[in-house]
Amino acid sequence: MKRVAIYPGSFDPITLGHLDLIQRASLLFDEIIVAVAKDTPKDTLFTADERMQMLQKATQGMKGVSIEVFEGLVIEFARKRNAKVLIRGLRMISDFEYELQMALTNRRLAEEIEMVFLMPSEGHQFLSSTLIKEAARLGADMSSFVPKGVAEKLNGKRKKK
Amino acid sequence: MKRVAIYPGSFDPITLGHLDLIQRASLLFDEIIVAVAKDTPKDTLFTADERMQMLQKATQGMKGVSIEVFEGLVIEFARKRNAKVLIRGLRMISDFEYELQMALTNRRLAEEIEMVFLMPSEGHQFLSSTLIKEAARLGADMSSFVPKGVAEKLNGKRKKK
Amino acid sequence: MKRVAIYPGSFDPITLGHLDLIQRASLLFDEIIVAVAKDTPKDTLFTADERMQMLQKATQGMKGVSIEVFEGLVIEFARKRNAKVLIRGLRMISDFEYELQMALTNRRLAEEIEMVFLMPSEGHQFLSSTLIKEAARLGADMSSFVPKGVAEKLNGKRKKK
Amino acid sequence: MKRVAIYPGSFDPITLGHLDLIQRASLLFDEIIVAVAKDTPKDTLFTADERMQMLQKATQGMKGVSIEVFEGLVIEFARKRNAKVLIRGLRMISDFEYELQMALTNRRLAEEIEMVFLMPSEGHQFLSSTLIKEAARLGADMSSFVPKGVAEKLNGKRKKK
Amino acid sequence: MKRVAIYPGSFDPITLGHLDLIQRASLLFDEIIVAVAKDTPKDTLFTADERMQMLQKATQGMKGVSIEVFEGLVIEFARKRNAKVLIRGLRMISDFEYELQMALTNRRLAEEIEMVFLMPSEGHQFLSSTLIKEAARLGADMSSFVPKGVAEKLNGKRKKK
Amino acid sequence: MKRVAIYPGSFDPITLGHLDLIQRASLLFDEIIVAVAKDTPKDTLFTADERMQMLQKATQGMKGVSIEVFEGLVIEFARKRNAKVLIRGLRMISDFEYELQMALTNRRLAEEIEMVFLMPSEGHQFLSSTLIKEAARLGADMSSFVPKGVAEKLNGKRKKK
Repeated sequence: MKRVAIYPGSFDPITLGHLDLIQRASLLFDEIIVAVAKDTPKDTLFTADERMQMLQKATQGMKGVSIEVFEGLVIEFARKRNAKVLIRGLRMISDFEYELQMALTNRRLAEEIEMVFLMPSEGHQFLSSTLIKEAARLGADMSSFVPKGVAEKLNGKRKKK
Repeated sequence: MKRVAIYPGSFDPITLGHLDLIQRASLLFDEIIVAVAKDTPKDTLFTADERMQMLQKATQGMKGVSIEVFEGLVIEFARKRNAKVLIRGLRMISDFEYELQMALTNRRLAEEIEMVFLMPSEGHQFLSSTLIKEAARLGADMSSFVPKGVAEKLNGKRKKK
Repeated sequence: MKRVAIYPGSFDPITLGHLDLIQRASLLFDEIIVAVAKDTPKDTLFTADERMQMLQKATQGMKGVSIEVFEGLVIEFARKRNAKVLIRGLRMISDFEYELQMALTNRRLAEEIEMVFLMPSEGHQFLSSTLIKEAARLGADMSSFVPKGVAEKLNGKRKKK
Repeated sequence: MKRVAIYPGSFDPITLGHLDLIQRASLLFDEIIVAVAKDTPKDTLFTADERMQMLQKATQGMKGVSIEVFEGLVIEFARKRNAKVLIRGLRMISDFEYELQMALTNRRLAEEIEMVFLMPSEGHQFLSSTLIKEAARLGADMSSFVPKGVAEKLNGKRKKK
Repeated sequence: MKRVAIYPGSFDPITLGHLDLIQRASLLFDEIIVAVAKDTPKDTLFTADERMQMLQKATQGMKGVSIEVFEGLVIEFARKRNAKVLIRGLRMISDFEYELQMALTNRRLAEEIEMVFLMPSEGHQFLSSTLIKEAARLGADMSSFVPKGVAEKLNGKRKKK
Repeated sequence: MKRVAIYPGSFDPITLGHLDLIQRASLLFDEIIVAVAKDTPKDTLFTADERMQMLQKATQGMKGVSIEVFEGLVIEFARKRNAKVLIRGLRMISDFEYELQMALTNRRLAEEIEMVFLMPSEGHQFLSSTLIKEAARLGADMSSFVPKGVAEKLNGKRKKK
C-alpha cells in the first residue's frame, strides 16, 4: 500500500524551513502532496498560482513530491487524494497550541486521518513567513531565509508597491 | 446576600464550551448574567442581538442564568448589576496570558471585583470560536462544536456570502 | 445552603501570596478550609503541624477561614467536608499546566467538585515557595515574602542545619 | 522497504495515553518497537521487566507491535534495529519544550533518524504517569487512567509500602 | 568608547512600562536612543510625530536619552547611529517567543548587534499597549497605566471618533 | 566608571552555549565575572573547583573575563564586587519563567542590581546541562556540545562509576 501524506499550508512564500520539512517528510512516506491553500483567513502577498510555482521550482527533483492548490477543508482534500496523514511543522510554543487545536478539530471531523508533526533543522527553527514578509517589506536581504527564486520575487513585490 | 456573577464575552457564536462553562458557573453562584459585548475589537460574524438570541435559546431552562448585551467596560457593567465576580474560562496557555493581563488591568480599575477562572470539560478544552468560524466557512459539519440552532445559523451565514 | 470551599496545598511555608488568596477566596464563599497536605511528593522543610500553626497565626481573625491537616486524596477530603469547590491560585504558565492536568484528573475522580482558580495580587504574582526556601537557605531577608512569624521560623531552620 | 519505528519511554507504568499512541503509530509504520528504557534518570516504581510485561499484555494482538527493553542511548538502539523513526507523543507545552531539546540533541548525534510526533486522543491528552502514580499512592481508583491489569499492579505496589 | 543602545518600538502610546524600561536602560549604557517606528505592520492610533512628542515629554530630564523616528529596518538605523545594542522589554511568554524570533532574524542580518532584554518593574509587568488602547476606547481611567500627558491625549482621540 | 557584570550559574559542566554567552557579554561590559555557585539546590557532577577550572581553561584569552567561586546569595556577591549587572541566558520558555521569578525576587532584595538577558547563538539555543549529562552518562559523543577539555572530563566521570 502506498503511503500518501499531505503537507498543507499557505506558503506565502515558501521558506527554507518549509523546504527542509518537505525533504524530511519525503523520506518517511511514499508520496508527499504539498497542498497550497487557495482560501486563507488573511490576505496573501502572492496568489495561489504564484505560491504553487515557487514551490514547484524549489522542490524540483525531489522524489515523490508534488504540488497542488486546494480549496475548502484540508481533510476533504486528503480524502480525495486517499491520504491518511497530514504533515505539520513544529517550531514554537505558539505554533504548538494552534496545531493542537487544529489537530483535535480535524480529528473530530475525520477520525481516520492522522496529524504527524516534524521538526525543522535548528537553523530553520525560528523562520516565520510573517516576520520574513515584514523584513522584506523593510528592505532586508532575504537570501538566508528563502529559496533563491523567492528572494527575487519578494523584492519584485516590494518595488511594485 | 445573593451572589451575582458576570460571564462576559463576544460569543460569536456560542460554542459547546461556553455552554459547559455557564452550567458549571450556575452551580457556584446564585445568579449568572451572560454579558454579550456589543463593542468588540474585531468585526463579528453575528450581530449582538443574534448572539444574544442564540445564547438565550441554548441556556433555556437553566436556573439563575440570564443574557444581556452590554456596552463599554465590563467592570462598569458589573458594578451596575451589583456583581462582585467575573467568570472566565481557561483552556490554553495563550488564553491564560491574555486573561492574566486582563485580570490585572481590571483589578487596577475595580479592586472590588474578583475574576474567577473555571475549566471547561475535556471534550471542550480545545474549542475556539475562531477555528470554528473558519471551519464553518470552509463547509465543515458543525454539529459536534456548537449547540444545534447555531450550526444552522452558521450555515446560513455561509450561503449568503 | 452554605458554600464551602477547600484551599489545598503543602504551604511549606505559607507566603504572602497564599495569604492574599485566602482573603480573596473568603469573600466569595461562606467557608474556606485551608487544607494542609500531610503526604507531599517531596520532603517538606516544616512538619504538617508547623505548617498548620503558621497558617493559623497568619489567618487569625479572618471570617469563615479554618485550617486542617489532611491525608490521602484532596477530593476525598472535600467530600467529607461537603465542599463542592477546590480553590487554586494561578501565577505562572508552569503552574497553569500542572493545574490543568490536576483539574482534569480530579474531575474524572469526582465530577461533582469544581476547581476554581483565582489570581493573587500583582505584588505576589511571582512568589514561589521553592525560590523562597532557597533564598532563605542562602541567608536572604524574608520579610517581603512571607508573614512575619514565618520569617523567623525560616531563620530558625537555617541555623539548626 | 519495511519502515520500522521505535517508541521509546520509561512506561512506569503504561497509561491509556501510551496505548492510544501505539495504536496510532501502528497504522503509520510497518513495525513498531516499543522500547522500554532500563536506565532512567529517576527511580522507577516498576522494574524494566515489569514494565515490559505490562506493555506486552496491553498490546497483545496489535499487528506489527513488539516490546523490548534497551540500555544506553535510544539512537544507538534505533540504529541496531535499523529504525529511521522515533515516535513521541505531544500533550503539553512542558512536554513540547523537553521534546524539542531532545529532538535537537538526538539530531546532532544521529542525523539520519527522524523524530515524529503524534497527538493522543482528547481523552488522554492530560494523562501523566507522574500524576497517576501520585494519585495511586493516595488511593485513587485507577481504572480510567491505565489498562486493566496495570490498575491492579499499582494497587499491589501501594499495599507493599 | 561610548556605548550607544537603541530602544525601538511603536510606542502607540508610551506606557509606564516603557518609561520604566528607558530608565533602567539609561543606567546601563551611555546613550539611549528611543527609536519610534514610522512603518508599523498595523495601523497606529497616534502618528509617528505624536508618539515622538509624547516620549519626549515623558523622558524630559533623563540623562543620555533622546528620541528619534526611524524608517526601514531597525538594524540599519542602529548601524547609522553606531549602536551595538538593541534594548527589548520582556513581560510575557508570548512576548518572549516573538522576541526570540526577532532576535534570531536580526542576528542573521547584522551579527555585530546584540539584543539585550530587560524586565520592567512588577507593577508594569502586565501593561500592554493593545489592552490599554482598548480600555481607553471603552472609557476607562488611564492614569495608572500611562504618563500624565498621554492619558489626556487618549481621551482626546476617543472623543473625536 | 568601569561597568562590571556577574554571570552566575552552576556550570556543571560549562557548555558551548555558556561559552557563547560569555563572549557576547564581554563585548557589552568592561569586566565579566563568571560566578560559580558553590551551594546548588541539586547535587553536582563536578566539584566547584573542577567547574571553575574547566571555565578558566575554556575562557583563556578572553579580555576582561575572570572566574570566581561564590557562596550565599548572588546579589551579595555582586555587591561585594561592585557589580550592577547580572547576566542571564534565555533559551526556552521554562527558562524564561524561572528567570522572571528569580529576577523579581532578586529585585526585591537588591533594587540597584539589574538583570540583563542575552540570547545564545541558534546553534546553542537548545543546549541543556541536564540533557548533556544524561547523554554523557549513556555514552554519547560530547564533542559538539561542550568545550574540548570538558568532553574528556565527562568521559572520565562516567568510567569511574
